[in-house]
Amino acid sequence: MDRQQVTQKIISVKVAQHMRWTDIAAEVGQSKEWTTAALLGQMTLNRAQADKVQALFGLTDEETAWLQIVPYKGSLESAVPTDPLIYRWYEIVSVYGTTIKELIHEEFGDGIMSAIDFSMDIQREADPKGDRVQVVLSGKFLPYKSY
Amino acid sequence: MDRQQVTQKIISVKVAQHMRWTDIAAEVGQSKEWTTAALLGQMTLNRAQADKVQALFGLTDEETAWLQIVPYKGSLESAVPTDPLIYRWYEIVSVYGTTIKELIHEEFGDGIMSAIDFSMDIQREADPKGDRVQVVLSGKFLPYKSY
Amino acid sequence: MDRQQVTQKIISVKVAQHMRWTDIAAEVGQSKEWTTAALLGQMTLNRAQADKVQALFGLTDEETAWLQIVPYKGSLESAVPTDPLIYRWYEIVSVYGTTIKELIHEEFGDGIMSAIDFSMDIQREADPKGDRVQVVLSGKFLPYKSY
Amino acid sequence: MDRQQVTQKIISVKVAQHMRWTDIAAEVGQSKEWTTAALLGQMTLNRAQADKVQALFGLTDEETAWLQIVPYKGSLESAVPTDPLIYRWYEIVSVYGTTIKELIHEEFGDGIMSAIDFSMDIQREADPKGDRVQVVLSGKFLPYKSY
Amino acid sequence: MDRQQVTQKIISVKVAQHMRWTDIAAEVGQSKEWTTAALLGQMTLNRAQADKVQALFGLTDEETAWLQIVPYKGSLESAVPTDPLIYRWYEIVSVYGTTIKELIHEEFGDGIMSAIDFSMDIQREADPKGDRVQVVLSGKFLPYKSY
Amino acid sequence: MDRQQVTQKIISVKVAQHMRWTDIAAEVGQSKEWTTAALLGQMTLNRAQADKVQALFGLTDEETAWLQIVPYKGSLESAVPTDPLIYRWYEIVSVYGTTIKELIHEEFGDGIMSAIDFSMDIQREADPKGDRVQVVLSGKFLPYKSY
Amino acid sequence: MDRQQVTQKIISVKVAQHMRWTDIAAEVGQSKEWTTAALLGQMTLNRAQADKVQALFGLTDEETAWLQIVPYKGSLESAVPTDPLIYRWYEIVSVYGTTIKELIHEEFGDGIMSAIDFSMDIQREADPKGDRVQVVLSGKFLPYKSY
Amino acid sequence: MDRQQVTQKIISVKVAQHMRWTDIAAEVGQSKEWTTAALLGQMTLNRAQADKVQALFGLTDEETAWLQIVPYKGSLESAVPTDPLIYRWYEIVSVYGTTIKELIHEEFGDGIMSAIDFSMDIQREADPKGDRVQVVLSGKFLPYKSY
Amino acid sequence: MDRQQVTQKIISVKVAQHMRWTDIAAEVGQSKEWTTAALLGQMTLNRAQADKVQALFGLTDEETAWLQIVPYKGSLESAVPTDPLIYRWYEIVSVYGTTIKELIHEEFGDGIMSAIDFSMDIQREADPKGDRVQVVLSGKFLPYKSY
Amino acid sequence: MDRQQVTQKIISVKVAQHMRWTDIAAEVGQSKEWTTAALLGQMTLNRAQADKVQALFGLTDEETAWLQIVPYKGSLESAVPTDPLIYRWYEIVSVYGTTIKELIHEEFGDGIMSAIDFSMDIQREADPKGDRVQVVLSGKFLPYKSY
Repeated sequence: MDRQQVTQKIISVKVAQHMRWTDIAAEVGQSKEWTTAALLGQMTLNRAQADKVQALFGLTDEETAWLQIVPYKGSLESAVPTDPLIYRWYEIVSVYGTTIKELIHEEFGDGIMSAIDFSMDIQREADPKGDRVQVVLSGKFLPYKSY
Repeated sequence: MDRQQVTQKIISVKVAQHMRWTDIAAEVGQSKEWTTAALLGQMTLNRAQADKVQALFGLTDEETAWLQIVPYKGSLESAVPTDPLIYRWYEIVSVYGTTIKELIHEEFGDGIMSAIDFSMDIQREADPKGDRVQVVLSGKFLPYKSY
Repeated sequence: MDRQQVTQKIISVKVAQHMRWTDIAAEVGQSKEWTTAALLGQMTLNRAQADKVQALFGLTDEETAWLQIVPYKGSLESAVPTDPLIYRWYEIVSVYGTTIKELIHEEFGDGIMSAIDFSMDIQREADPKGDRVQVVLSGKFLPYKSY
Repeated sequence: MDRQQVTQKIISVKVAQHMRWTDIAAEVGQSKEWTTAALLGQMTLNRAQADKVQALFGLTDEETAWLQIVPYKGSLESAVPTDPLIYRWYEIVSVYGTTIKELIHEEFGDGIMSAIDFSMDIQREADPKGDRVQVVLSGKFLPYKSY
Repeated sequence: MDRQQVTQKIISVKVAQHMRWTDIAAEVGQSKEWTTAALLGQMTLNRAQADKVQALFGLTDEETAWLQIVPYKGSLESAVPTDPLIYRWYEIVSVYGTTIKELIHEEFGDGIMSAIDFSMDIQREADPKGDRVQVVLSGKFLPYKSY
Repeated sequence: MDRQQVTQKIISVKVAQHMRWTDIAAEVGQSKEWTTAALLGQMTLNRAQADKVQALFGLTDEETAWLQIVPYKGSLESAVPTDPLIYRWYEIVSVYGTTIKELIHEEFGDGIMSAIDFSMDIQREADPKGDRVQVVLSGKFLPYKSY
Repeated sequence: MDRQQVTQKIISVKVAQHMRWTDIAAEVGQSKEWTTAALLGQMTLNRAQADKVQALFGLTDEETAWLQIVPYKGSLESAVPTDPLIYRWYEIVSVYGTTIKELIHEEFGDGIMSAIDFSMDIQREADPKGDRVQVVLSGKFLPYKSY
Repeated sequence: MDRQQVTQKIISVKVAQHMRWTDIAAEVGQSKEWTTAALLGQMTLNRAQADKVQALFGLTDEETAWLQIVPYKGSLESAVPTDPLIYRWYEIVSVYGTTIKELIHEEFGDGIMSAIDFSMDIQREADPKGDRVQVVLSGKFLPYKSY
Repeated sequence: MDRQQVTQKIISVKVAQHMRWTDIAAEVGQSKEWTTAALLGQMTLNRAQADKVQALFGLTDEETAWLQIVPYKGSLESAVPTDPLIYRWYEIVSVYGTTIKELIHEEFGDGIMSAIDFSMDIQREADPKGDRVQVVLSGKFLPYKSY
Repeated sequence: MDRQQVTQKIISVKVAQHMRWTDIAAEVGQSKEWTTAALLGQMTLNRAQADKVQALFGLTDEETAWLQIVPYKGSLESAVPTDPLIYRWYEIVSVYGTTIKELIHEEFGDGIMSAIDFSMDIQREADPKGDRVQVVLSGKFLPYKSY
């Protein structure tokens, strides 16, 4: 058994039982963004979180143990994603990557925006010309230092 | 001559004269995000915008004409970027890509978040544990339709 | 279970029972282009459409549920397709890609032809020198805006 | 000297003199699609066509000779294009490729739609919900035969 | 079930029963080149041909139906083949590719040698210095046209 | 200076002076196939051949010396060629590669068809349904031996 | 069944029964180099050799038949091998490849060292500073000829 | 200036003056294998060796200084080499790689054959059936240890 | 059976029984670094070590035999790792690779730091600003020699 | 002008004047590891550091300005490095990557070892069996958090 098999079981149960990530997250007691990432095999659950997931999805003890093991992360099958929704994000990095780099460096100096000490919030933004997806990303700035 | 040469000249002038993107954007009269992307060769300027850039950077008429031509977009040299700051964004797409997909579909149904009808805002978020980079992305939701 | 397994079952049934996409589409009540893409795992069916497909192909309830989940899109196994028919389309993009870009920009300005708000129609075009395949693609123009 | 240098000179002159592909095509006496592809280095001009291009762009005799040499075709720099407009076409091949294959085979049997005995027409399609790009592709069907 | 499984069964039977492609082709009533390609999953059989193959290899009706479905073509596992015999052919394309291009264009003008309206004949060529493999390829010339 | 520069000069002169490979080969005294490959930088000329090429193309002594140095072979810019004519050959290897392998092994046993002790002949094959390109490849069979 | 499955069975038996390639080769009556390559699925056995292998490893008749079929060669999983021992050989080709090319051409003229009419011998070379691996490679020189 | 430019100058002089690696090596006082690798930019020369090379090729002091700097090694332009002679070596690693691994491990245990404490000797091996290239590789065995 | 299956069994048992690498290493009697690498399928165990592992994880005799066979090394699924922790190491090689090369060459001359005669020690480094990971790598310097 | 040109000038001057990184670092007042990385174009210098480098290498004011601009990082030319010394580091990540991951997670939980808040120290480790290279890497542990 490995984490991927647990992830697949969770997704299968979710589809068969018409569950929603928002409801699942409410049960787990975390944001919908973190909870979805965790159940898609990208994050590590603590004991209490794993127990709730075990109950919700009818997992075995061994499957529940796997949720508490740090997974090998990376949720895409190829370096350039083929799915149009995910590709648009890759395109944003391609088109705006150097812009993001310039503006963060102009404001903060040399360093990076952390993808670890990081959170994300996805919301519907009502708009008369067609609703928009608003995504807020927040990552700690980590400076390079000379030594 | 091509757009890339104009971009390189703009960057050279900016470094040699210690200019800042924020100031340049104020002159051009657009957001710092759009202006930086445009001057890094990813966006098309209209006549008025191009004229301001010509004056700021001392461009020739031919160089200024190139700013008004739609460029071949894509600012990175390799499918997987090597620069740590830009890589962190690629990593976010890798780790959270399927999460973003699930949550947008749960809220909106099948479709994408546009990378064209799109804007971005990058700000410093003060934080006692170390300041954070906050990035707000806003893209129109475009639904797939059956026909 | 995942969507790919449902797709494979549908294809197996279609071959074993000598069904035609055109007839299937008439049953589903959508164009043959959209219906084929949907049953090849690229589009999301609504409840009514999925019910018809369930009846036609003898699917289980769980398989029918999967048809209503937004799939991870992308129907090819490699970045450059090896099948000659599909490769010819890739070749068109390779040879005419910059031409298409120039002419759309000349007519519409900077932006893209949407692959989401998009439809396709494939027809036989009778020709004494050998019949032709005529494909009409229609996609909404989406302009880039400055902000 | 090679064809690519002639292409670059043509593009440079076009930008500097604010020319349009539609007007250039009218001078050359061919469709705007073929003419643009030809001047972007993908097609071979005959003597008369090359002479008109020489006059329009002020080419030397050697540059004009290159226009009449069959070029090494392929206008993109990478297997997966980074430019958003061209990528959308690649995405269409990725998402609809197997659909196109199924429907052409259902109508015509085994074979391909030619990318050589091929023409393309790009038009604006007025639409109250936002104008659309309509592209008509026409390629001869070429059957595989057993021998 | 898919075509690949049918191909694998055919190859397994052929090895277990020490059959030869030349004999199989004689039964099918086509050339050994076309028959081998077809049974390796690259060509589409008509009803009569499929029936003969069914009898020869003891296929089920469903397996026989798959032989009559146009397959996804491409018989190699990687872009650059690792098998030395097949690699030599790839090497011929690498070393002589531009030569073949120049000479076909010199004789015929711009266009291609078809790989669809195409046949191949492989023979032993006796030679006192060591027998040779002689391969005759014949493909219709398809000209590019301006429009 | 390197061989590639000599090749480029030869091609430039050929285009500027409207020369033909067939005529050049007659001067050099070799087949048009070998001569073209040699002047495209894939083969090594002996002194006499190089002297004739020097006279025909007006090469310097140093350029002529390079023609007699064994070149680094491989005439294509990417693993999968983008030019349609050359791609068709790559497609033949992709679709028929395993067929060629099976039939050569059936006739000769384990080994390869040499791409070194190899010759090629390209001819026009008149055909009322459209002329064909006929290519005859001849390569010595080289058997693997056990030891 | 395919050759790879036979190879895996042979390796499994060898590990479970603590056999050595040297002893197996002595039974088969060939060098340890050829025998190992053959049993790793890279070479074709004749009837007598296959019978001995059948007895040694307890193969079925069908498995034994597969040993006598020419395999699809290539024993590595990626273009650049990850295993350190095999990588060192790839590194030798990378670092010394052009050197080997220069020296063979200086001695023999244009051509190659055959990898088909080829043998290999691997021996321990005692050395007080640490024993060495000595590998002798012998391949027939095959000259390119003009025609 | 960099090492690659020095290498190109050395090769240019060698071609223009019809020099041989064997003679150059005799002057430098090292084997022809090491000397060729060094002058092709893969090895570091000491002061005395560099001085001899300076005299032989008419190098400047700065060029001579570069010969004594450890170079970035790797003499091939692509992961899979296109030149037939060098490819044959890559093929040997592909076909015999796992064999070499098995036999070295059987004799020595876990570890590698060094590509650093390594030498190579290339000789003509006279053979009535056609002369052969004999290459002797000698590399120190380096064992993995547990700790 | 192969080594990978044994590795997967070991990992499964470890997760199900909440074992720690540090404790396992103490049982095996080696460092935690070597033991973990070995049980993840990268190192070869001797008889005594394998017996202890057999007892700890309840392996069969055949599984235990596989632990004593030299494995095909390389623990990552792609050339550029997607897991953030492992990617940071790849990034260190990318950003600091040329620095490491320069400084080792400056101190030792041409050669390498061995990855075979190599050990690694990973420790927690307490730090009031947040604990650090300290990794000490020690590899024998192996000089290139001229010959 | 760009940073790469400044880097190349610095390297050229260093080679021509036989300078050592250790001495340069002493002048700059930072560690030899950071200084070398900075002058190889991977780090950003402050004004004071840049002034010292200007004096040492005779840089122009514009070149000196570039040293203070955050560079696009990544010092290698290919995803898998070809240089043997740098490859050994890549190999360490390949062979030990999952081990490092397991042990850091066992000690710290889910998170990464920072490559930004990071330092490196390279020393000679005297050893009677041959001196060793000792490298100490120290990176802050950054935990993933749920939110």
